[in-house]
Amino acid sequence: MRQPTIRDVAERAGVSKSLVSLVLRGSDQVRPEKRDAVLRAAQELGYRPNAAARSLSEQRTRTVGVLLNDLRNPWFVDLLDGLNSLLHANGLHMLLADARLNRRTGQDPADPLLDLRVDGLVVVGTLPDPAALGAVAERIPVVLAGSREPAPPGVDVVAGDDERGARLAAEHLIGLGHRRIAHIAGYGVVGELRRGSFEATMLRHGLAERAVVEPSDMTEEGGYRTTVRLLSGPERPTAVFAVNDMAAIGVLSAAEELGLRVPRDLSVVGYDNTSIARLRHVWLTTVDNTSHEVGRRAARCLLERFEGPGGAGRIQLATPTLEIRGSTAPAP
Amino acid sequence: MRQPTIRDVAERAGVSKSLVSLVLRGSDQVRPEKRDAVLRAAQELGYRPNAAARSLSEQRTRTVGVLLNDLRNPWFVDLLDGLNSLLHANGLHMLLADARLNRRTGQDPADPLLDLRVDGLVVVGTLPDPAALGAVAERIPVVLAGSREPAPPGVDVVAGDDERGARLAAEHLIGLGHRRIAHIAGYGVVGELRRGSFEATMLRHGLAERAVVEPSDMTEEGGYRTTVRLLSGPERPTAVFAVNDMAAIGVLSAAEELGLRVPRDLSVVGYDNTSIARLRHVWLTTVDNTSHEVGRRAARCLLERFEGPGGAGRIQLATPTLEIRGSTAPAP
Repeated sequence: MRQPTIRDVAERAGVSKSLVSLVLRGSDQVRPEKRDAVLRAAQELGYRPNAAARSLSEQRTRTVGVLLNDLRNPWFVDLLDGLNSLLHANGLHMLLADARLNRRTGQDPADPLLDLRVDGLVVVGTLPDPAALGAVAERIPVVLAGSREPAPPGVDVVAGDDERGARLAAEHLIGLGHRRIAHIAGYGVVGELRRGSFEATMLRHGLAERAVVEPSDMTEEGGYRTTVRLLSGPERPTAVFAVNDMAAIGVLSAAEELGLRVPRDLSVVGYDNTSIARLRHVWLTTVDNTSHEVGRRAARCLLERFEGPGGAGRIQLATPTLEIRGSTAPAP
Repeated sequence: MRQPTIRDVAERAGVSKSLVSLVLRGSDQVRPEKRDAVLRAAQELGYRPNAAARSLSEQRTRTVGVLLNDLRNPWFVDLLDGLNSLLHANGLHMLLADARLNRRTGQDPADPLLDLRVDGLVVVGTLPDPAALGAVAERIPVVLAGSREPAPPGVDVVAGDDERGARLAAEHLIGLGHRRIAHIAGYGVVGELRRGSFEATMLRHGLAERAVVEPSDMTEEGGYRTTVRLLSGPERPTAVFAVNDMAAIGVLSAAEELGLRVPRDLSVVGYDNTSIARLRHVWLTTVDNTSHEVGRRAARCLLERFEGPGGAGRIQLATPTLEIRGSTAPAP
């Protein structure tokens, strides 16, 4: 059986050879339909590019380790899909580890992946101690995806633009006529960026005094408790922007319990566009991180570092969009 | 630094040495509080049992591969927790692979794990072709967890008792006075067992003629579409038992859209007790698979096969319970 060539892929996808090669390097210059056609053709044929094959023959396992922060919050699913699309087209497999589970034993959560000699590591989400990845990054390429913590030298960061996302959410609510708007805040750099941008947007619209910020632990339970407190106070907000979808679901529950109808009495915006936000029963207006794109770019960073290791770490931000659903409406 | 011994674990947990050893073998004869105390002490001390150490020195990677069916349905999270608790106490790590992602490329989804020479494989959920695991099972121990498909020789199966779970759900609804009850059915052996048990329970209560069964693809979308059809028909059911939580969420959405209040006008029961069912905003009555227990038993099967490989595959069923929440009420 002959190995499929780049010509076979181009033929099957109905595009030129140079376009195939652009796609496999993860170029942004290709239209999504073309890109999908090429990746599909490459997968169907089991194509493996020469360059990747060459670089991989010096590597060990053709496997990329993916360290997930916590499997219980499903925001990472689209990111994995994006990561996978490009890695698989380049003949690489993904293995996952759940940092929350490994953390319990006090070991470094990346250890099981490193013990198995993965060729590269993608860390998805915020780890408690990202600095510890420095030692790993001296041995294999490391990319942080979907988090904004300070990265050790030589580690690439790919994430959504949190400041822009939070601004979209705040401007959507202000545009609907809301004035007294609360933000259920989170922690870490992502939490700080979203909160700071919410406050700056309120200030820019002369609403700094009407902004309310309450901290939370970014869970449903935390969003619920904070909101019960917020909505029972004297000057009730008419809209809540939560740091993530899980906390926003908690806001929905609190509103329901206090007899407020969403969106008639209270508008709610989340962040992440998780599968839960898309459930018809929830149907939450939320910021879409373009996680699929973040995953694809993270894969590209890794592939580039396989080709030519070394060099300073770079930061790439993907542009989020607002997904308007049923939880927001004009201010009462 | 001295390696911690079984005596150290016993001391820290405040129990006897023989109790520690029972727990580490995964015995059912130990009360849950004691078991948790021992596992916690073992983890905190970084204890590794001699027997496991001995058997592992002949093995290769101290890593167990876990093949997940599809990361998008969160029912497996508790199962992983249970699996992890016993594996980690025995010095073993878990690595995960998403069969849905690997499937796309047409390769065997277990390949990436096997290429890295995991010591054992746990398959979580229903795979399209479990028979393909036969070749794997000749090389390393394989356990199927949370699925009931026919297993190849030498493969252990640990799952919830689906017939009992479906009976609990149906009897709960019948006990609330519902007579016309619909079942949104699923596929695979699990789907068959739940449907069969629902029908048998209805028959036993003289309600065979009032039972309605509609097939679904076990997704939210599928549950939604089926329910819209069901509830728009002439003789509307007053209760729906869905094959899983995802389909049940679709039932909730359909009811909402048709102006029916849950549980006043329609009672809904799911299956799996996923994190989504536990959200206050959803608060779904559902069958709990005791997935943590299923995971723990799957780990025990694997540990036993490390100690003494070979022998016929066994089937173990864990006993489900009914988690009554806000989506069920007496018949209108």
